Amino acid sequence: MNRRMIFYILGQIIKILALFLLLPALVSVIYRENAVYSFLISAVIAALIGLLLTLKKPAEKRIYAKDGFVVTALAWIAVSLIGALPFYISREIPSFIDCFFETVSGFTTTGGTAVNNIEGFSRGLIFWRSFTHWIGGMGVLVFVMAIIPLTGRSMYLMRAESPGPIVGKLVPKLKNTAKILYAIYIFLTAVEVLLLIMGGMSVFDSVIHAFGTAGTGGFSNKAASIAAYNSTYIHIVITVFMALFGINFNIYFFLVTRNFRSVFKNEELRWYLGIIAVAIILIAVNIMPHYSNVGTAVKDAAFQTVSTITTTGYVTADYAEWPEFSQTILVLLMFCGASAGSTGGGIKVSRLLLYAKMSLRELRRMLHPKSVSVVSLDGKPVGESNLADIGTYFAFYLIIAAITLLLLSLDRFDFKTNFTAMASCLNNIGPFLGRGGPFGSYSEFSAASKLLLSLNMLFGRLELFPLLMTLNPAIWKKH
Amino acid sequence: MNRRMIFYILGQIIKILALFLLLPALVSVIYRENAVYSFLISAVIAALIGLLLTLKKPAEKRIYAKDGFVVTALAWIAVSLIGALPFYISREIPSFIDCFFETVSGFTTTGGTAVNNIEGFSRGLIFWRSFTHWIGGMGVLVFVMAIIPLTGRSMYLMRAESPGPIVGKLVPKLKNTAKILYAIYIFLTAVEVLLLIMGGMSVFDSVIHAFGTAGTGGFSNKAASIAAYNSTYIHIVITVFMALFGINFNIYFFLVTRNFRSVFKNEELRWYLGIIAVAIILIAVNIMPHYSNVGTAVKDAAFQTVSTITTTGYVTADYAEWPEFSQTILVLLMFCGASAGSTGGGIKVSRLLLYAKMSLRELRRMLHPKSVSVVSLDGKPVGESNLADIGTYFAFYLIIAAITLLLLSLDRFDFKTNFTAMASCLNNIGPFLGRGGPFGSYSEFSAASKLLLSLNMLFGRLELFPLLMTLNPAIWKKH
Repeated sequence: MNRRMIFYILGQIIKILALFLLLPALVSVIYRENAVYSFLISAVIAALIGLLLTLKKPAEKRIYAKDGFVVTALAWIAVSLIGALPFYISREIPSFIDCFFETVSGFTTTGGTAVNNIEGFSRGLIFWRSFTHWIGGMGVLVFVMAIIPLTGRSMYLMRAESPGPIVGKLVPKLKNTAKILYAIYIFLTAVEVLLLIMGGMSVFDSVIHAFGTAGTGGFSNKAASIAAYNSTYIHIVITVFMALFGINFNIYFFLVTRNFRSVFKNEELRWYLGIIAVAIILIAVNIMPHYSNVGTAVKDAAFQTVSTITTTGYVTADYAEWPEFSQTILVLLMFCGASAGSTGGGIKVSRLLLYAKMSLRELRRMLHPKSVSVVSLDGKPVGESNLADIGTYFAFYLIIAAITLLLLSLDRFDFKTNFTAMASCLNNIGPFLGRGGPFGSYSEFSAASKLLLSLNMLFGRLELFPLLMTLNPAIWKKH
Repeated sequence: MNRRMIFYILGQIIKILALFLLLPALVSVIYRENAVYSFLISAVIAALIGLLLTLKKPAEKRIYAKDGFVVTALAWIAVSLIGALPFYISREIPSFIDCFFETVSGFTTTGGTAVNNIEGFSRGLIFWRSFTHWIGGMGVLVFVMAIIPLTGRSMYLMRAESPGPIVGKLVPKLKNTAKILYAIYIFLTAVEVLLLIMGGMSVFDSVIHAFGTAGTGGFSNKAASIAAYNSTYIHIVITVFMALFGINFNIYFFLVTRNFRSVFKNEELRWYLGIIAVAIILIAVNIMPHYSNVGTAVKDAAFQTVSTITTTGYVTADYAEWPEFSQTILVLLMFCGASAGSTGGGIKVSRLLLYAKMSLRELRRMLHPKSVSVVSLDGKPVGESNLADIGTYFAFYLIIAAITLLLLSLDRFDFKTNFTAMASCLNNIGPFLGRGGPFGSYSEFSAASKLLLSLNMLFGRLELFPLLMTLNPAIWKKH
């Protein structure tokens, strides 16, 4: 393991975090808030740690797969710890565990909150909280790769951080791939901000909700989430943009480069849109008797379907009051997740698709043991090691889910609360079905449960392996 | 596909079912009940169908893997349909769906009931209901193989019906393997009957509960299940025998043949006993404050742990009133299941063990892509196709669970009821946590839900593949 290089990259990331912290400081200055000091102190702390770690440039720059996993895991833990400081220093969230939970929930784009009084928070902190969604959505390391020349096999970093079973480059140079992804990301976010402002939302609120949508995070500055805005236009804009941010960003690159064949060949896109369409129809029909207006039923069905499958977690309707069938569809969508290479979390449509294809192949093999067949996605064969990783992913996913469910049951809540809280955090969604329904917060969970759920969010966002590897003592042995 | 041979074997099985139906008829004669006619009519119907199907001996006797799957699936559906007749003809269960549910629940050793007034049933029917547990526990086809000379590759039949990821023969001849298994089964059942009679249980009740334990089924002739017997001795005898019937029967063969090395080498046995021990300790400590007596708490913890992991489903305590932690342990044990080659259901300890080993291997491979390693069980390497089957098993298991949960949510119950009913039926356990807690019945579910849950029980008992293959239209095409 190349420890020096791991700490060097970590230092670079923390230095960038220091810069990021200046943005909410600026917001605090604009709104003349005291919170500005908490950002400046945090930025100085981050800068010092970052400089300390990057004092000496390592002679050996090459990194391997395991270094990629470890640096990714450590980076996400480090930015969550440092990113929690402004909440703590400003004393707007008194308990550090809650600050950490909120920051992990932000960076991992989960969007579950541990606070009940968000509307009383300073604007600077609200901005920072939502900005962590935006940073975490595309990835902390992807950003570093876009701006800092990292020699060595930085593909390992990208692979460890990017969501989905198969990670490829758009263009030969990784740095340029990262830049293209961020350009698409910034452009789509900006369009959403404009459209929300046009709908009558304030500039500040528009930025907050565009960050929440873009990262498929779900933090809002309103306790009632998007239900606070009584505007069909705003609900529709956010529905459409949630769906857009749940699509593999490669698709937008193909569209821009007029490579329409690749768009049409994309199986995940078809399944993703197909699942959304079917779920909307089923839920709309199911909830219709509870609504006086067909349009509103369809709008709410569409909003919650897209919000859940993309793992955003915004809410326009109290679906805890919907019939059990609609709730169960939403629970299943929690596990489905969005597309690989999007900002969405969950298991991912393509991973499920490949797992299904693998399993159908094995079923054929049971009947015709000598048959040989290759699993393909988008017309291209998928490597056996990628397929094996998917099986492994599911095994550890189930183990983590089972352990989490068991440990949560030591807290004071019932089965449905524990199950949906686990599913919500592990899949980076946010809301869960406990007391208060989807508008409820995690504040009543014990500190231990909050730490456990934070760990689940990190497992979910990093798709298990980086953290699993880092927690494995064998990887730290010298050999 | 060798259709003639499939129907021939099916006919043989149904003829044996006709003979089996004479046993409850005898019970009805002893207790002078009218139900005797319903058994005789059912036996005649079974005999006629069986004779019709075996009129012509097929010239070509060879069968292949897919024939093994299809004959197994069809045999289980056929015996469930015919086995339901006595309930229907006697009018003790008015709805045929309920009769079918009860019989599937019996043969698959699930033990969930659709009736609320079991204590008012005639003895003949109670005997038949529990006898289906005993037949289904060891297997319908294994029994046929033990008594009828089936030429051709009957290993395919055994493999399709026997529980567990890897199926082997004890002795070179399959017929003798089947006979040894049944000899062990009969011996252990007889010992339990004697021990229960010695504890003051009536002869009839002893036989009923020995059948329920031996098949790890869980049907009782008491509405309060084993809680109806206020005897620590009886609770302990049943706990021990449930645990014994959840062990791979090969272990008993090794013990009888003094092959102690094979017993000690058996990894599944160690894990099975280890999981039971840990679960008992955790639950006992957790429920202690609710009990006035340490011994009773340990006894109830042990009973419910063993009853759940072996998928028997007998109940001595209303664990719906236990703390959430203990309930969650039981829910997880529902999925764990007993040992391969036992009468227990669920996923099986060895399948989970192999899945974990596979996954740890892949984790190593991610770090060292060129490393080659073999997954072993009991010191012997496991074939890659067996391992691939396990991954496939989990994929379809999750798909079936998700679809079942979704369809059940169309019925009138809540998430916990639907989730535990699905888990209970798919893993062949019996009780679920709905209204009435573990003592409740499935009677209030709709007819459609009962059919769906019956299908789940069959999927669970046959470990998915036979039914999946049979439901696959491609297998029925001629080529």
